[in-house]
Parts: sequence; structure tokens; C-alpha cells
Amino acid sequence: MDNSGGIRFENEYWKDYPLTEHDLAIDAHDLAVQRTGGEIQGVSVVEEKRENAKITRIEVLNEQGAQAIGKAVGKYITIESEGLKGQNRLVHDELSEILSQELVSLIDFDRVRPHPNLEPTIFVVGLGNWNATADALGPQVLNHLMVTRHLYQEAPPELRKGLRPVCALSPGVLGLTGVQTAEIIKGVVEQVRPDLIIAIDSLAAHHTGRLANTIQLSNTGISPGSGIGKVRMAINQETMKIPVIAIGVPTVVHAITIVNNAMEEMLKGEIFSKVERERFRHIQEDEKKRMVGNILGPFMGNLVVSPKGVDELILNVGRIIAGGINIALHPDITPENISLYL
Amino acid sequence: MDNSGGIRFENEYWKDYPLTEHDLAIDAHDLAVQRTGGEIQGVSVVEEKRENAKITRIEVLNEQGAQAIGKAVGKYITIESEGLKGQNRLVHDELSEILSQELVSLIDFDRVRPHPNLEPTIFVVGLGNWNATADALGPQVLNHLMVTRHLYQEAPPELRKGLRPVCALSPGVLGLTGVQTAEIIKGVVEQVRPDLIIAIDSLAAHHTGRLANTIQLSNTGISPGSGIGKVRMAINQETMKIPVIAIGVPTVVHAITIVNNAMEEMLKGEIFSKVERERFRHIQEDEKKRMVGNILGPFMGNLVVSPKGVDELILNVGRIIAGGINIALHPDITPENISLYL
Amino acid sequence: MDNSGGIRFENEYWKDYPLTEHDLAIDAHDLAVQRTGGEIQGVSVVEEKRENAKITRIEVLNEQGAQAIGKAVGKYITIESEGLKGQNRLVHDELSEILSQELVSLIDFDRVRPHPNLEPTIFVVGLGNWNATADALGPQVLNHLMVTRHLYQEAPPELRKGLRPVCALSPGVLGLTGVQTAEIIKGVVEQVRPDLIIAIDSLAAHHTGRLANTIQLSNTGISPGSGIGKVRMAINQETMKIPVIAIGVPTVVHAITIVNNAMEEMLKGEIFSKVERERFRHIQEDEKKRMVGNILGPFMGNLVVSPKGVDELILNVGRIIAGGINIALHPDITPENISLYL
Amino acid sequence: MDNSGGIRFENEYWKDYPLTEHDLAIDAHDLAVQRTGGEIQGVSVVEEKRENAKITRIEVLNEQGAQAIGKAVGKYITIESEGLKGQNRLVHDELSEILSQELVSLIDFDRVRPHPNLEPTIFVVGLGNWNATADALGPQVLNHLMVTRHLYQEAPPELRKGLRPVCALSPGVLGLTGVQTAEIIKGVVEQVRPDLIIAIDSLAAHHTGRLANTIQLSNTGISPGSGIGKVRMAINQETMKIPVIAIGVPTVVHAITIVNNAMEEMLKGEIFSKVERERFRHIQEDEKKRMVGNILGPFMGNLVVSPKGVDELILNVGRIIAGGINIALHPDITPENISLYL
Repeated sequence: MDNSGGIRFENEYWKDYPLTEHDLAIDAHDLAVQRTGGEIQGVSVVEEKRENAKITRIEVLNEQGAQAIGKAVGKYITIESEGLKGQNRLVHDELSEILSQELVSLIDFDRVRPHPNLEPTIFVVGLGNWNATADALGPQVLNHLMVTRHLYQEAPPELRKGLRPVCALSPGVLGLTGVQTAEIIKGVVEQVRPDLIIAIDSLAAHHTGRLANTIQLSNTGISPGSGIGKVRMAINQETMKIPVIAIGVPTVVHAITIVNNAMEEMLKGEIFSKVERERFRHIQEDEKKRMVGNILGPFMGNLVVSPKGVDELILNVGRIIAGGINIALHPDITPENISLYL
Repeated sequence: MDNSGGIRFENEYWKDYPLTEHDLAIDAHDLAVQRTGGEIQGVSVVEEKRENAKITRIEVLNEQGAQAIGKAVGKYITIESEGLKGQNRLVHDELSEILSQELVSLIDFDRVRPHPNLEPTIFVVGLGNWNATADALGPQVLNHLMVTRHLYQEAPPELRKGLRPVCALSPGVLGLTGVQTAEIIKGVVEQVRPDLIIAIDSLAAHHTGRLANTIQLSNTGISPGSGIGKVRMAINQETMKIPVIAIGVPTVVHAITIVNNAMEEMLKGEIFSKVERERFRHIQEDEKKRMVGNILGPFMGNLVVSPKGVDELILNVGRIIAGGINIALHPDITPENISLYL
Repeated sequence: MDNSGGIRFENEYWKDYPLTEHDLAIDAHDLAVQRTGGEIQGVSVVEEKRENAKITRIEVLNEQGAQAIGKAVGKYITIESEGLKGQNRLVHDELSEILSQELVSLIDFDRVRPHPNLEPTIFVVGLGNWNATADALGPQVLNHLMVTRHLYQEAPPELRKGLRPVCALSPGVLGLTGVQTAEIIKGVVEQVRPDLIIAIDSLAAHHTGRLANTIQLSNTGISPGSGIGKVRMAINQETMKIPVIAIGVPTVVHAITIVNNAMEEMLKGEIFSKVERERFRHIQEDEKKRMVGNILGPFMGNLVVSPKGVDELILNVGRIIAGGINIALHPDITPENISLYL
Repeated sequence: MDNSGGIRFENEYWKDYPLTEHDLAIDAHDLAVQRTGGEIQGVSVVEEKRENAKITRIEVLNEQGAQAIGKAVGKYITIESEGLKGQNRLVHDELSEILSQELVSLIDFDRVRPHPNLEPTIFVVGLGNWNATADALGPQVLNHLMVTRHLYQEAPPELRKGLRPVCALSPGVLGLTGVQTAEIIKGVVEQVRPDLIIAIDSLAAHHTGRLANTIQLSNTGISPGSGIGKVRMAINQETMKIPVIAIGVPTVVHAITIVNNAMEEMLKGEIFSKVERERFRHIQEDEKKRMVGNILGPFMGNLVVSPKGVDELILNVGRIIAGGINIALHPDITPENISLYL
């Protein structure tokens, strides 16, 4: 999630706010199914149920599929679990393990290896703003990540076994640095020459029910701020010249989204006749936004909705994701012994 | 604002959430005027404009007035200024000075003095939850407060001149302590025997336009959690046996309020006919709450709306209020020399 | 540890700083053994080795023992483990369990029970200053404590089973509140009427080797600030009229202590002859303090020594202690299922 | 200050710790004067007294001077003021102004300008570890810095007047990122192409009297971790290909330094005869380090000494430095109107 400006400069951005875009492939797919009433051509979907989680693996196979659901060609995996919000450490550990398995399935370690005898260097990027709790997921993950590149370089071969060189950066957001996030990442990539990027980001949910109940992994990278209608350099294979895995969790809902949902909900009810509903659907987007403006007032698009315990939520989810990455990246680490390495 | 439970135990509290109560006397009064179309008996209102602030002094004179606007008999002063949200330190200093003047007008130092030759001991209470940014205003004020009681007691008389003994506590919230906030305050009051309480609290706004643009002072005390329909021991003259001045700032809007505002706004527009509007007004509160439930999902009443830069906002407002209290309580401190004492 | 004043007012306190007092009974006992060359009358000592910890149970049986080691009559249990400093979560869990067993052995639940059919209410006090990392152990423990009193009161009898009513407070320090910590505690005790206090505090170590490797439990209570030569109201059975269990961990070393240790170490070496050593031992305490003043300069007694990773250390130790208390206080909680309750 | 490893990996680094190096040119110069008993060839020194500060401008003119005081050829300005530690905002503002003047004198804006009609882009780097209070000065400065590059690029020419494009990054430390700090900086420099770097860092003081009473500016850049004997890529004109201004403040003293100072102090006293003193001076550095090891125990070189109120100290000093940089970089900002821009 891009939080580029801060209060002073972004008051007007809501005007360009897309009320209907979906950060999560699973929601975009569901919507397309609802719209078309059936299977989507060019998209394959496989679901798997676990005790405490539901895994959905969506693959956008071609441009037809990409058009249909508004998501780039590539793989999207969602892990849905109410346990993400909970406090049960055993469930958290289980989610870390599921995440690590799905992550390994997305990374082709043999392909990213710079040489048959060398382990790939992985660069983990914690996107987001550490000053804004709900947007701090990326930096929070880095607090629990095993960073090993500097040790790996100096370690004798026998000690390197079972570990891979991992480096990490929380680049901040445009409003804090004055530099596009992707430029900072690219600068570091060109110095450090990693073989793979894993980028973690907070996502904006389009319904509060999604808050902190889903982890999405994809191999299509990230476009910071794309959700708020700004053109920014993407962080993906094309811009970085190496594969980019994205991990995202919906941690915030824009107030504007809530208002929109409220209006939709009112129209769904029995209160209004079909005629009235149609009339509302046809009022200009501009009139709708004027109404939103009346409701949200001067803070506008800068208003976000989050649960009261969001600090603790971000902390827990950050730990779960870091655990999953640690297990996935270091072959000798298992869910049983990870505590020995931390 | 009381944040007593945390995610796990409060999911259902929204059912009792009063959608129409107003924390601010000024809003309650405006609404009453709107409803009755004229002056409210038993309530006096005086407005004063300053360069960077508007001061409104409302006095609820008798039970008739209290009934009319739903606020207890007593004095309510609001200082409205967009400068509270800004970064201009000169405006902040000006607001501190205005606050100090209004505070002095509410405190009758001669009445609270325990003896004609003794300065009163003032107990400043920072209500709210330091773990929840938007609810941390009270604790934040205490970070900038001049606490002098322990020094005062040991100082020679000539050094006491110009200062008053001030002590302070952030008692936390029920969910953190397992004890009602008022019980903790009462316990300390009975040990320390102060002559006056000043209690600072975050308020829930009923429109996002109110967020961080108003400071309300009153001499009627505070009822923690009253806004969320729970009966808790109040912090006022009756329970504490000493005068209680309350200082509050709206720092948060419940998501439920936003949804309600959205529904109201829709009905205000030209889209619906008068008949439809009346029909909606008459649907059961229950049906309305069911709709809210659909929109807000499992987090429900625990969802709060706040501006992205809320951390910095609370920091600034906390400093402004602490500055105002410091100047008001210590006769030798002026806006010009306060920096020498900190 | 009492951090009452802050930079501005405490510059001179080092003058009264006791260079030889020992917060830990185990160190006081060792020193006495070293001095007298044998067993100490009136003190019983039992040691027990565990895989990851050494437990020492010292009982000061009478006034003779109290005189000999400078500790009040009562029980002192130390749990020593280098695992406290480590990151191994399994060892942390083991230490929580050991702590819970020792805690249960110190608390006579049947004696503190207000009525044969009623569970005692326990009041957990987190002493120390949340603004000073090394002194924030008490408040940190409270972040992980199960606070149940407010739920317990409203819960039906069948749900109360297996839990005990627990309330908690971090009262701050004199410099933050202007009120003696014990006064605040006493005020709350008189309102809430708990049956037992458990007070957690940071201790000052007298050697850096002690930092974060020991948990001390005792049933003799706490005297805040006693370590720095100030007379403050104690938190013990006598002042609170209910039993007080103290839990402490050495988290900081005063710079003054390090300097003293350095001088002692120099004299121990081969560099100086016995004559010179004796000469040094006999220089006035005043001269020694003048030298300390030269070394530590204007910050003086406000200088503390702590390991670079002290933030993470306090976090981990806080979690371990909270875990131990949670298991000890709630009969249905075991190390296996505690995660289900958090 | 480089805090590269954390507890687990740095236990042994103290063995290479240079007990006699001086971060501050003014201390290095004083020592050289003391040693040689007179003026140092190749070094010019000019002092200036202000009401609340003493400014010393040292220029190392040639290699002879560099050899003599152990500092590279270049300019070193120290601003000494006890007001840095204080709470007086007026003195803080005065120090910001002095800093801005000295900074402007070190930056040759006309030389760094990329084109006669273009303002130079300035890259402000906040070195240090945000997780370790005393090492967090760099990141703290960035919290109060006016970052304008992203706004500047999009602003019409008339609005650009009076501002310069400023970008900023806190790159973290090796232990957090696995990447040498200078590599990250270099990567960003090659993407963003700034014309000047200003790097802020915490320094290790060699006497507690220096803590937070001095700001050093120099045009010679920074060598992260050089103080702890590790070879790291420097951040200077040679490595970055653009001028690098360094701003540093001593915020921490290594415990090892205190111990050394204690030993020195003992020998200075009247206790020991000249013979004994000489004997001690000639004991092997190794023996001395063994003694240090006994005193500091397992935490060793990871132990740092800091004043109790270090959090507040870093906050204040961070604000003062950010204020000075803001005034220096933006021509239309003056001490009087800076609050209007923040």
C-alpha cells in the first residue's frame, strides 16, 4: 500500500480513487464469475482445504484470462484463515508452514540459482510505511526475518550448508523518501545482484471481512500505489530483471470503500424498488463522489478503517509471514527447529 | 474513549451502539436548534472569534436545558481550529494559550485551595489506551506535562512560588487492567488527596469533519465508555468528591457512524422521493443494524476510522493540550517562558 | 528500579549510591560465604539443576540470617539460565514453566483465598518506567498478561472454572507521576481489595555477567528506589496488608558500578603489590567518589550500562515472566494449551 | 555508529576495539596538542564563542596535519553547547540556526549545482539502527526533515522557488539488511543522481562528558564501523563521486571506554607512585583486555553506556539537526518562518 504523501498533499487523491478495483485475485475472479455466471476462460482455479486454512491457487494462463479478471498473467495463491487474526501460536506455526510450502512452489530455486553449485541470493523487500500501523506489515516482517547474507559471505563452506544468503530492506514510501520505492529497490539490486526478490506489502481490502484473513502470494510482482490511481514504476521481472514474488495481506479498508459498500448495501435491501435502484446506479460517478465528499469531509481519501487491535494484528501476521519465509529459504530449517535459529 | 475489551470480547457491543448520541455539547446544541428551529431554553451560548480559533461557551443552566440537549448541567467550552491538525508551531502555541485561559476560567483556584495560604494540588488524569494510537491522547498529554508534586514537597518556599503541585496518572483501560478506570482514580485520590482533577480523553466524533479540529473543556466530568452504552462509574464531582474538569478531543470516528452517515447522505440527495425517504426512516433500527453488520462484517464495532497521519496528529494535539495545562496551572509560566521550564 | 527524576533533578544522587549493596539474595549470600569462609547461620540454601536452568532456593530463617546477608527474613528463589538471553522459544517455554512452579510454591493459594469457595483476586503490578527500555520490564510483562477480573465478574460460574480473577497496573515512577509508586498501589488495593500482589521490577545488577540471566522471586516485597539510597514507602505485607510476591530480573548495571568493578579488578591483578592494594582500599570513599565523578562527568549516576539488544531482551524476558504467571494463576492453563487462551 | 551484528555475532569484536581512537576532530586535535605541547603543523584552528555555543573550525590542510591528528584532510566544525541536552526550545532554535550557517559554509551550492539554472538535488542519509535508541539519531533526524524531491518534480516553476529538491533514506545497518550501508547508498545515488549527500550518524564518545554536547560537521564523509575496527566501504566523495557532508553527535560511550577511563583515572591519582604507574602503562594491551573481559563479562563490546533519558535526548537532538538542515537547504526558509513549512 502506498502512503506517499501524508495529510498535507493528498487530500485530493480520492477523486481518482477506483471504487471497483480488487487487490486480491480471488476477489477479482469471484466477481468475474458472478458477472458472467460461469467459468472464466484462460483462468484455472484449484482449491484445497486444510484444517485451519483454505488454499486457492489461481493461474491466469493467457491474455484472455488477464482481461477477464483484470490481473496480469501469472500465478496467484491465497491462503485464507481466520487463524491469522487469532492468538493461537500453534495455528500461527501451521500457517507459517503452509506459507513456506506455497512459497517454495512459486520459487524455482534451480532456475534462480546463479550457478549449479551456488545458492541464490534472495532480497526480501518490506514495502510500506513504518509510521502508519496498518501499512507497516512489510517493515514488521523484516523485524523477524533471518538476514544471513553478511554472515554467509564470511562463513566457511560447511557452515553455509542449510542456509541461503538473504538480505533485506524496508525502503519506506515516496512521502518519506522523495524517491519512488522501485528506484531504491533497483539501485540496491544493481549493487547487490540478488537472484530473486520477495516483496511484502499491505493490501487495501474492499470489504472489512477480508481484513487480516488472507495471505496472497503471486509471481507477478507489485505496482506500488497502483490501487490509488497513480502511475509508479512497478517492482517486477520486467523492471528488476530478476523474478519477483509478492506477498500481500489486506490490512486496511479505505473509508471511501466503506461508504461505497454502505450505498450498495442499502440498494440491495427491500427498501427500494427496482426502479429506484436503477436510478441510483445511473447517477453519475461524480455525483456519487460528491456524496462521498460530504460524508468523509476534509480528510477524504486519507481516512482508513482498521480494527482497534491493528497493532497486535500486524505484529502477529508479520511473525507468521517471516516464519514462512525463513523456513522456505533455508533448507535445514523446519517448523520444529526454527526456534533454534532465531 | 473506552477501549475496554480488545478484539476478542467486544464483537457484539455494536448492537448497543447509540447512533445518535453526541460527545460534543456544541453538536448536541446545534442538533437541538435544528430540531426545534430556535433558541433552547435553559442553555446559554456565547461565541468569540479569534484569528485562528473560534471559542464557543455553552452553559447548561438547568434541568430543562439538560433535557433539551442531552448534556448535564454545567459549562462546556469548545475551541475549534483547523490549526490543531496543522504543523504550524506558532498556531499551536496560540492554541495552548487560548486553552490555558479557558481552563483558568473553569477552575476557581480560590475555591479549590485547601487553605488560603496553600496552593491546590492538581491531579491530571490521562484517560485512554496507549496501545491504540487514536485513543492515546490522554497518555500522550502526560508525556509533555510538568509533573511537580514530588519536587514541590521537598522544595523551599521561595522555589515553590510560581508553581503549583501537579501529579499525574494514565490509568489505562478496563481491558488492560481488569479494573474500572474510575476505581483506580478514586484509589489514588483517596491516598494523595488532590484538590482538583483534570481528566483528558479522546472522544468519538460523529462526523469525520470533527476529527482533530475541536478541544472541548467542561466542568461536568467524564463517564468512560458511556458513548458505547456501558454503565461505568463516572469521574466527576459526585464520585470523586472534588471538582473534575474534562478536556476532550474527537480523534476517532466509529466505522458504524460512517456507514450511518452514508445512509443519511443517500437519503438527503435528489435520488429518492420523499415517500422513499420516509419509508427508510421508518425501517426498524434492527434492520438498519443488520445492514451495518453486512457492511462491517466480523470486526463490527471494533472498526474505527482515522486519518493516515493520526500518530503525528495525536502527538501535536497532546503537546498543545499539555502546553495549555502547564501555563494554566503554574502562575509564573507564560507562553513566552514556558520553554525554560521544560 | 526507580527512575524517579530524569536528567534534570538527579544529577547528585550518585553521592549516596551504595557501591556494595546487592539486589539479589544469591549474590548477597555468596559474598557473605566468601567473607566468612563458610556456612551462614540462619540461612538455608537448596540448589537444583535442570537442563536449561539452575534453581537456588534461599530462606532467611531469622534475624541472625537477615543480618548476615543483608536481606529480610523470607524466601528467595533464583532461576539462573543463559537461555533468558537467547532466542530459543522452546527454552523460553521451559523457563516459563519453571517460573510458574516456583511461583505456585511461594503462593499459598489456600491461605490467600478470601473464602473456601472463592478464588483469590490477584493484582499484578508492573513497576518501572516504560520510557526507559531497561527499566520497562514490569510494563512489558503486563503486555502479555492474561487480565481476567472484569470478565470473571460477569462470567457464569461454569466459565469461571479454571481461571482466577487477575487485575493489573503499571503505576509508572515518581518522576512521571509525582506520586510515590506505593501510594498508587495502596490506593488501588483499597478500592479493589485483591488478596495477593505480584510485583515485577527491573533490578540493578552489580556485574554485567548477571544481566538478563537470572529471575529472582521472593515473598518479602519490594522497596522501590532503596537501591539508590532513597527512603520510599515499601510494597510489602506490612504496607499493603496482603501478601506481596516480588519478581525481579537484573536488566541494567549502573555506570558507577562498572567503574567500581574496574578499580577492583585492577587491584586484583599482579600489577600492584599488597601494600599498594591496601593503600587503595583505605582511601576515603569520598576520594573514590571524586574519581568516579571525573570519569562519569555531568551525567553521573544517570548513566546506565546495557547491552545493545536490550529492547529485544526485555521483550523476551517479559514474555517468559508473563507466561509463567499466566500458568501459575490459572489452574486450567498448562504449557501445552496456554496459546489457546491468549 | 555501526551496530552490525546484534548480540549473537559480535561478542568477540571488542578484541579489536581501538581504545584510543577519537571520533571527534576536536578531541583528536586536543590530544595531539597535549602530546606535542604546542601547535600542530598542517592544522588550522579557529574558535568562536556564541551566547549558548562554542564553534571550533578545524581544517586539516595537508598530509602532515592528517598524520598528526589522525584525521583526513578536510574541514571539521564542532558546535559545542550544553543546550543540546536541555529542554529550552529557544536555545534549540538558536542551535538549529548556527548549524544551518555552518552547513551552508561547508556546502558550495554553486559548485554542486548541476547547471547554472538548476538547484542541486540533496540526498540526506540517516545512518544508524532505529531499533537501538542511542544509535537512532540518523533515522530520528529524517522524521523531522522536509522531503521535497517528489513534490518539486511536479510543482510549477513559481512554486519551486525558495525550495530545493531533497530526498532521504535510512538504510539501516549491516546486521539488519545483510548489505553494507555504503552499497545501499551507492545504489540509490546511481538511480537518483543527487548532487550532494548529507549523512547523519551517531558517534561513540570517548568520555561521558562529551555525550550529547557536541555536533560535528565535516566535508570528509563517513566510514561506518571504522570505530570498531572493521573495514567497510566508506561514504565519501571517492566512493560516491559527489561531495559528502557528515553530521555526527556523540550519543553513546562503549562500556569498554568507561573501564579504560577508570583505569587511567586511578593511575592519575596520588595513590600510586610513578614507578607503579609506569609498570601499569607497560603491561601488555592483551593483559589489559583480559581484565576488561573480567569486568564486562559475556556481553563485552556490546555493552554501551547511555544516560537514562537518552530517548528524549535523541528526539531533541534529531529535531535540532533536522531544523538546521531544513533552513540550510531551502533558501526561503528562515528560523522565523520554518514552522509554516512543516
